[in-house]
Amino acid sequence: MSQITKEPVTLAVQLEKNLKKDSFSTVLANFTPVVLTPPLPQETLLDTFAKLAALAHSNDYLNHQAENLSDLNKSVLEKIYHYGVSPKIINQRQVNILNRKTGIDYPTINPDEISIFNSPITNPQGADLGTRMDLFGQIVDQVLEKTYPTNTLAPDDIIHVSCSGYLAPSPVEKMVSQRHWSTTVTHSYHMGCYGSIPALRMATGFLAASHYGLGKPKQQIDIIHTEFLTLHVNLTSLTPRDILAMTLFGDGFIKYSIYPLKEVLSQKSSGLKVLALKEAIIPNSLAEMLWNLSSHNFEMILSKKIPFLIRDNILVFVEELMSEIGLEFAKEKNKLVFAIHPGGPKIIEFIQRSLKIAPEQVAFSHEILTQFGNMSSATLPYIWDKILSAKEIPSGTLVLSIAFGPGLTAAGAIMEKL
Amino acid sequence: MSQITKEPVTLAVQLEKNLKKDSFSTVLANFTPVVLTPPLPQETLLDTFAKLAALAHSNDYLNHQAENLSDLNKSVLEKIYHYGVSPKIINQRQVNILNRKTGIDYPTINPDEISIFNSPITNPQGADLGTRMDLFGQIVDQVLEKTYPTNTLAPDDIIHVSCSGYLAPSPVEKMVSQRHWSTTVTHSYHMGCYGSIPALRMATGFLAASHYGLGKPKQQIDIIHTEFLTLHVNLTSLTPRDILAMTLFGDGFIKYSIYPLKEVLSQKSSGLKVLALKEAIIPNSLAEMLWNLSSHNFEMILSKKIPFLIRDNILVFVEELMSEIGLEFAKEKNKLVFAIHPGGPKIIEFIQRSLKIAPEQVAFSHEILTQFGNMSSATLPYIWDKILSAKEIPSGTLVLSIAFGPGLTAAGAIMEKL
Repeated sequence: MSQITKEPVTLAVQLEKNLKKDSFSTVLANFTPVVLTPPLPQETLLDTFAKLAALAHSNDYLNHQAENLSDLNKSVLEKIYHYGVSPKIINQRQVNILNRKTGIDYPTINPDEISIFNSPITNPQGADLGTRMDLFGQIVDQVLEKTYPTNTLAPDDIIHVSCSGYLAPSPVEKMVSQRHWSTTVTHSYHMGCYGSIPALRMATGFLAASHYGLGKPKQQIDIIHTEFLTLHVNLTSLTPRDILAMTLFGDGFIKYSIYPLKEVLSQKSSGLKVLALKEAIIPNSLAEMLWNLSSHNFEMILSKKIPFLIRDNILVFVEELMSEIGLEFAKEKNKLVFAIHPGGPKIIEFIQRSLKIAPEQVAFSHEILTQFGNMSSATLPYIWDKILSAKEIPSGTLVLSIAFGPGLTAAGAIMEKL
Repeated sequence: MSQITKEPVTLAVQLEKNLKKDSFSTVLANFTPVVLTPPLPQETLLDTFAKLAALAHSNDYLNHQAENLSDLNKSVLEKIYHYGVSPKIINQRQVNILNRKTGIDYPTINPDEISIFNSPITNPQGADLGTRMDLFGQIVDQVLEKTYPTNTLAPDDIIHVSCSGYLAPSPVEKMVSQRHWSTTVTHSYHMGCYGSIPALRMATGFLAASHYGLGKPKQQIDIIHTEFLTLHVNLTSLTPRDILAMTLFGDGFIKYSIYPLKEVLSQKSSGLKVLALKEAIIPNSLAEMLWNLSSHNFEMILSKKIPFLIRDNILVFVEELMSEIGLEFAKEKNKLVFAIHPGGPKIIEFIQRSLKIAPEQVAFSHEILTQFGNMSSATLPYIWDKILSAKEIPSGTLVLSIAFGPGLTAAGAIMEKL
């Protein structure tokens, strides 16, 4: 990692000159990732979903085809291995649609244990949306129990980020109600993989407004991401893009807090100081990524063009983001560490090449993808957590984050490691 | 309205002393309500929904009952008139699930013209959720065409508020993309009837953060509410609470802008200056109101206890809200004008009695309910628009707003009419 630690302190000093002296700054700290059930090996998951998908297609098959069932199984498995994300890229994922009683990992999964697909032959679409939302609520209740142990002090606000489950009252509102907290809860829903950036905009805004006269000055805003993406698996369609979605996404849960800078400095704590946040819609890309509700699940449409659209637009976006703090990307890029949302297997490489940066600078994105899959909005915070605790990344280093979602929306942040 | 205009200027002067001198203030202005299709008389709607609901129940009826179809029609109509909101309380509503080719009002509606229920006998549940979301997109596209005519200047941000339709990309993102605007779009979804208050928190926060160093100082943030609530009508259930929902909600669309105070003062424009925003969850009320996704529509559960829970908790909430700007509610209440979200037929009266305020002080809430029904999050902005343009409400008057939603969440705002 030697390349990325060059002169970080000089950079921070240079930066200090560009920023207004009286500006209000906020800091992210206290990252708490929650792994509710141990991640399962990607190979196990590919096999399991192939078995389930074969069962879901067996009715069509029995009515219309001459082959036998084991041939169907084999052909589905081949298709899933061909179009799916390989175990080299995603080693394991957290999957909470399994009815596992224990947390113990095991090599084979009985399809009967897949809660939303308990009779794939007769009901290939699986549980309807209402049932899946109920399961979302149950799982997130468990996440909150772990994230907010008894006697946790109430934060001023909690921003609940999700693109996978919408309930009202939400599990977060339930918790706040049961604990008689005066915490304000805000839903930050349906923004997809870039969801952490609008949440940071909200948190920074809520703190800034409160410190400049709107109510009492707030001291702590929590952001919690609950992305239960495997809830939306669809077995009835086996197009390449559906297989990609089935093999790419993992469940991800993580909480962190945003504080006014003064608060963090007085406690000499570490954290990530927010310097710039930016979102922009990439032109002529409206139809390339969709995330919409249907009767049984939320449906994702991912076109093959996405990596290329990102490749062709990312440099300008990153240059504009850097210019928000008065820095030239070309001059500074070798000193930066990157948090790139691994939208798909190719995204990190494409961005790395477009920005002409070193593989070491994007290592954390690879690491999280390999260990957890694409956790939608929870992914960047997992990467931030790694960067904050990495001893080889010194204080003063700037962290440049990028994520994408429907629009196509590109979202970015620059933060300084304190 | 003489009661509420007493000493408003004195109140504003007193208030000035309580607030910090260097505080950052924002102002709401330029309200643009959009009525896509002329509201229809409540009587017409009660008759139409009764006819549709009778058709939706005719299969059950034909299989199990001895009465004839006209008896069924009659009994459903009686039930809907008994439990539904009467035309005295809601005179008319905007309903965009009708396939009307023209904007002309007419006294009877053919059930075939109800786009999501075109075969209620064989398919009583109507269109599935995906189809309804597509219709949401089409209707909101039309709303945006009217709200943002060609050559509209791009605002810095648009906050899209809805609890009735979630698409990604959203219609707002589509518009921003097609116009090549650099506007940042934020989804503020699934918060229900109190949704305007979190949207104001976000807008005020985005402005405050930008003026204190996070990016370039922003000048204009638009908030647009698109509540297409009739999209979620369910004909299969005729419990009192379902009939209430079917006869209470109207579609509502409205846009307005938030500016930094300085901007508005320099142009001597009118507007509503934001002084306080507050949300709180009423204890022991989690199960009383739910708003959740299902396979065919979003389902609302409203218990009979809601008006009583609001009645018993509203005074303390309003006192706390007033104390945020250093005022005592009891002392000031006769000088205030109220924007009370008319959640149900009884809500305005219950609050008026609990707060011991005059009927004149809540007149705008009654007016909007009568003319448009409950438009969820769009309702308070419709009331604000009326108050802002009402000549009998002088500058300096404080406007106290209250709305409710699942949680039960109580949300409130205090604004000063400029």
